Amino acid sequence: MKRCTLYQYWRSSASWRVRWALSIKGVAFESIPVNLLTGEQSSAEHQARSPIGRVPALVLEDGRSLSESVAILEWLEETIPSPALYPRDPWQRARTRQLVEIINAAVQPLQNISVLKKLSPDSAEQRAWAAHFNELGLAAYEAQLAQIALESGGNGPFSIGDALSAADLFLVPQLYTARRFHVDVSRFPRVLAAEQAALATPHAEAARPEHQPGATPT
Amino acid sequence: MKRCTLYQYWRSSASWRVRWALSIKGVAFESIPVNLLTGEQSSAEHQARSPIGRVPALVLEDGRSLSESVAILEWLEETIPSPALYPRDPWQRARTRQLVEIINAAVQPLQNISVLKKLSPDSAEQRAWAAHFNELGLAAYEAQLAQIALESGGNGPFSIGDALSAADLFLVPQLYTARRFHVDVSRFPRVLAAEQAALATPHAEAARPEHQPGATPT
Repeated sequence: MKRCTLYQYWRSSASWRVRWALSIKGVAFESIPVNLLTGEQSSAEHQARSPIGRVPALVLEDGRSLSESVAILEWLEETIPSPALYPRDPWQRARTRQLVEIINAAVQPLQNISVLKKLSPDSAEQRAWAAHFNELGLAAYEAQLAQIALESGGNGPFSIGDALSAADLFLVPQLYTARRFHVDVSRFPRVLAAEQAALATPHAEAARPEHQPGATPT
Repeated sequence: MKRCTLYQYWRSSASWRVRWALSIKGVAFESIPVNLLTGEQSSAEHQARSPIGRVPALVLEDGRSLSESVAILEWLEETIPSPALYPRDPWQRARTRQLVEIINAAVQPLQNISVLKKLSPDSAEQRAWAAHFNELGLAAYEAQLAQIALESGGNGPFSIGDALSAADLFLVPQLYTARRFHVDVSRFPRVLAAEQAALATPHAEAARPEHQPGATPT
């Protein structure tokens, strides 16, 4: 694949998933920051890249753009199959996608910046709401990992067996966010083991938020 | 595939997507209602099927269960490829998944019953919140259909070209929900054309909420 451009925000968990996947797949990309705090994502220019006005958006060399991190990861997998981010076995692929969607549909959308702003101007209320949905989702993820271990006679240390998968690329950024909202993640030992394994793989460090353009000290 | 069991709620949009897909793929299934209004989805029994406590959950004859409608549809597609619910071309598949996620991650999670209950006990406040996210998401879906038409020199009448796809199976139930929240859907002509085409296909009518066990007159 030729060089492409990733419009992203350093602390966006969905951006993190995609830049990590691009690095694993060996795709060279230029990173352009979109500042979510000043509303750059709602500009007409950015909405041409992402109609829902979110990051990340991946723009190909021919100008076509793709948003939604799930769609980007699946497309990368289909066009650059190796190294794989989804297992080969259909049932294990289903389990991977189930874990992906617990983060992508049941946690992240409920606590992104635009939703918190719509909820309340009060930051304590925002934090409590965000922590609630992070806790629910991570508890479900932990329970699902336990169920996978039961059905496959052992699981881990990654989310799915002994290899990094798309599920880990969704989990790790969400855990970072959960900690920002002071969620007690020590309740989720299987989740933490998967995080540790995922962060020890190549490309993990470079994808972290603090190494991205536009990152500010917290 | 052998007979399976779908735990669902008649008016749940995610349940609708899955029972529609099962019918298209020719999978026989028993339908068991889970009453979201009385909280049955939060029982330990149901959480063993769906750790996040949602519907639908698909239980196979061997007892394994799978939740998350995206994971179920992709798994059906991989194990029963025909009739296809995703196009063959990787870019068109990416577009399909992008549309799917606009509904699955940017609309539905923000306005399901549990979130509305957490938001406020006031039904007017709930309706306004739900309508807001339905409007945002459907506007993005409409804009994306316009962009697809530009890049492929014409599109439709379905969400992706001239065949029913997973995107339509996500769109149609969401439109039904949007109308319940009094969203003015006439602003979205491409969306309405896709809905009309999708509802004219075989298996569409039988999947509608009013034909499901547990449905009550509205």
